[in-house]
Amino acid sequence: MAQKPSTPKGTRDFSPVEVAKRNYIFDTIKSQFEKFGFQPIETPSFENSETLMGKYGEEGDRLIFKILNSGDFLKKANEKAYLDKDSNKITASISEKALRYDLTVPFARYVVQHQSEIEFPFKRYQIQPVWRADRPQKGRFREFYQCDADVVGSESLWQEVEFVQLYDAVFTALGLTGVSIKINNRKILSGFAEVIGEKDRLIDFTVALDKLDKIGEEGVKKEMLEKGISSEALEKIQPIFNKEGSFSDKIDILTGILTSSETGKQGIEELRFVYNAVTELGLDTATLELDVTLARGLNYYTGAIFEVAAPATIQMGSIGGGGRYDDLTGIFGLKNVSGVGISFGLDRIYLVMEELGLFPETVTQNTRVLFINFGEKEALYALKAIRDLRQKGISAELYPEDAKMKKQMNYANKREIPFVVLAGVEEMASGKFGLKNMKTGEQQKLTIEELTSGLK
Amino acid sequence: MAQKPSTPKGTRDFSPVEVAKRNYIFDTIKSQFEKFGFQPIETPSFENSETLMGKYGEEGDRLIFKILNSGDFLKKANEKAYLDKDSNKITASISEKALRYDLTVPFARYVVQHQSEIEFPFKRYQIQPVWRADRPQKGRFREFYQCDADVVGSESLWQEVEFVQLYDAVFTALGLTGVSIKINNRKILSGFAEVIGEKDRLIDFTVALDKLDKIGEEGVKKEMLEKGISSEALEKIQPIFNKEGSFSDKIDILTGILTSSETGKQGIEELRFVYNAVTELGLDTATLELDVTLARGLNYYTGAIFEVAAPATIQMGSIGGGGRYDDLTGIFGLKNVSGVGISFGLDRIYLVMEELGLFPETVTQNTRVLFINFGEKEALYALKAIRDLRQKGISAELYPEDAKMKKQMNYANKREIPFVVLAGVEEMASGKFGLKNMKTGEQQKLTIEELTSGLK
Repeated sequence: MAQKPSTPKGTRDFSPVEVAKRNYIFDTIKSQFEKFGFQPIETPSFENSETLMGKYGEEGDRLIFKILNSGDFLKKANEKAYLDKDSNKITASISEKALRYDLTVPFARYVVQHQSEIEFPFKRYQIQPVWRADRPQKGRFREFYQCDADVVGSESLWQEVEFVQLYDAVFTALGLTGVSIKINNRKILSGFAEVIGEKDRLIDFTVALDKLDKIGEEGVKKEMLEKGISSEALEKIQPIFNKEGSFSDKIDILTGILTSSETGKQGIEELRFVYNAVTELGLDTATLELDVTLARGLNYYTGAIFEVAAPATIQMGSIGGGGRYDDLTGIFGLKNVSGVGISFGLDRIYLVMEELGLFPETVTQNTRVLFINFGEKEALYALKAIRDLRQKGISAELYPEDAKMKKQMNYANKREIPFVVLAGVEEMASGKFGLKNMKTGEQQKLTIEELTSGLK
Repeated sequence: MAQKPSTPKGTRDFSPVEVAKRNYIFDTIKSQFEKFGFQPIETPSFENSETLMGKYGEEGDRLIFKILNSGDFLKKANEKAYLDKDSNKITASISEKALRYDLTVPFARYVVQHQSEIEFPFKRYQIQPVWRADRPQKGRFREFYQCDADVVGSESLWQEVEFVQLYDAVFTALGLTGVSIKINNRKILSGFAEVIGEKDRLIDFTVALDKLDKIGEEGVKKEMLEKGISSEALEKIQPIFNKEGSFSDKIDILTGILTSSETGKQGIEELRFVYNAVTELGLDTATLELDVTLARGLNYYTGAIFEVAAPATIQMGSIGGGGRYDDLTGIFGLKNVSGVGISFGLDRIYLVMEELGLFPETVTQNTRVLFINFGEKEALYALKAIRDLRQKGISAELYPEDAKMKKQMNYANKREIPFVVLAGVEEMASGKFGLKNMKTGEQQKLTIEELTSGLK
């Protein structure tokens, strides 16, 4: 019975053109990852449920896709949950595996499992899809790629410096100039909470501060007051609401605010180190900005926090992010391994590049030349030439049937194949090939050698 | 709480070396696919269950990984199945999605869904993982990649010719010479059943014949007799048990046997066409063999059947296979679209290449040069040079900490980085860099220009 076919909600097919453009981004990122000394790993699409569950908070756990056990899975179902018809409680007893939710937890699992084979510091990159049972909405999908580079096993700040360079190198290579690499440090945020005497309200404080772009200074202050932060406290940190000023101006302001916090001062030192080194080394097309409102997953990061914004002309959320985390592998029993990493948001980068017209034309170029099929003998003559061309690296096709000329030319047009070869009995007799440029309409009779060099 | 981490049964992590080798195979295959005019598509990892279920037989359905619905999935569970605790019957009501089992059915779904955007004949390739809940065993995994190239929308036999060339081109490019491309035709098998008067026993007949390599001539005959095929019938086809002889000898023998079967004669004509064209065009390193015992998924193929065997020196099952199928998209409501395609068995090709030592050394080469870290000023001096090198395409790393020399050199050794740069105060003063070849131990003092050209 015929079904009306479709893809599941929140998932996508990718056409040849889309695959080519996505691969262009992937390949550019990979190439820079490798120049920076990162090595690729891959992990399975699904993990044992206990590897993933409990790592992303309650909301995260709900969004993990669970795989149903094979065979007579109800036999092992938790009896009480079965009687109670409790979907939540029964899950663990009928599902042992789950689709990867991100690349970070599988990476931590990998490092712990393979620690004896790994040379630390371990610089790895990983480009694979992840799955989330999110409500699908514009620009948010249930299957999407993550592109992560991380270093584990060293606390050196040179890595923060290199990640700023890496962002700059990738976006420069993509032609996406003018991105802004925002940096902050968790220790600065802790310092703020400390100097205003609200160490215990660090989360509330940061969550509110993070909304500055969205709800403005008054909104943030209102939220902070509601959370019980005093107006005297807010006065102490008043200067941080001013997002203007250079990196070093902001460092000076922070130094003024955070004099009484050791943690805060350490955060300033770390920012200063990264800023000085990056200034000394120079960036190609990106700028480094200090944004003290930047928090991202605060419970997660312990040092530097990164986020990349598209050029100011483009309306788009962050196209990359990352930071330092101090105990990622601890959840799997390997303590004291510091890590730092960054991530690239493929789907958003794709949209930005489309909007700015940054994909080179050659990216989507497929077959270079189509040979028209005039019949059996001519097709064989064509295939001999095609074999030659392919061996010289030129992609070439024979139209599989001796269909009407118009149909074959139409195929070349629709597929946007730039050249067509016509070789009938006449050309065969003279050992030549008629080459037609589909754009200009120009036609030439060429030998195989001329054809090859003409198409190269 | 610390967990002992592991991957699920039948799945694998891939280390940097393994990823590099796998990508070498993928990239080689892709590059040939594209030279032959195939275009990449990608489909989601999971499909709606109704897209997959019922397409692979009962056994196949059981091996499909089902994804549990999110939320309170038991609420919508089939009530009767729930009362009966019937795992089989309840599945459809608590699971709407399933992981892709192969690339063929999703491809058929893609073609039907996007038929208005597609230019036929549509030459697509697809390289993505698939999942099967098979019992894991040596060389069989629950997650593995398929690499498929198919053409739909044309019945032309030139495509069979091109697929033989494509196999030859890929294996030649991989350095895997001497593979044997076996070809058969479903119409030949139908012809056999016809001339022995056992049209209805085609499946039994073919299943038995397919075992010739395993159980020998006597075994096959015994099985056929047991299935009710007469000994007179077997006498008629006696010559097919002889696997010796050239392609054209075998064609002659078939012509003798199949005189009374129109279908059989058509099969012979198709084989002859492919053989003649391939002979005329020539193959680089593979050979084309006629193997009338070759059946593969018989219910599926309607014309040519392909299978590729590794060089005779290697013990390994088939490393590729494919064939023509006449109504793949019919299951989704698009009738009369003929297709033909081939597939490459990545995991087995990998094993064969390992055994024969065919991976080029450069495949696993990662970072080309490590800069030793002597402290903050030296590190900055190093990073300036590193930036230069990376921009010239050379992958370079700074050891992130000014650790003991021995530790840093050890890291370079273990990572198999071929060059190390030492640049301390002395080198900085003269604007030079000490380059050490880790293999020969040779050391030189070089300017940045000399360093760049030396490392290229």
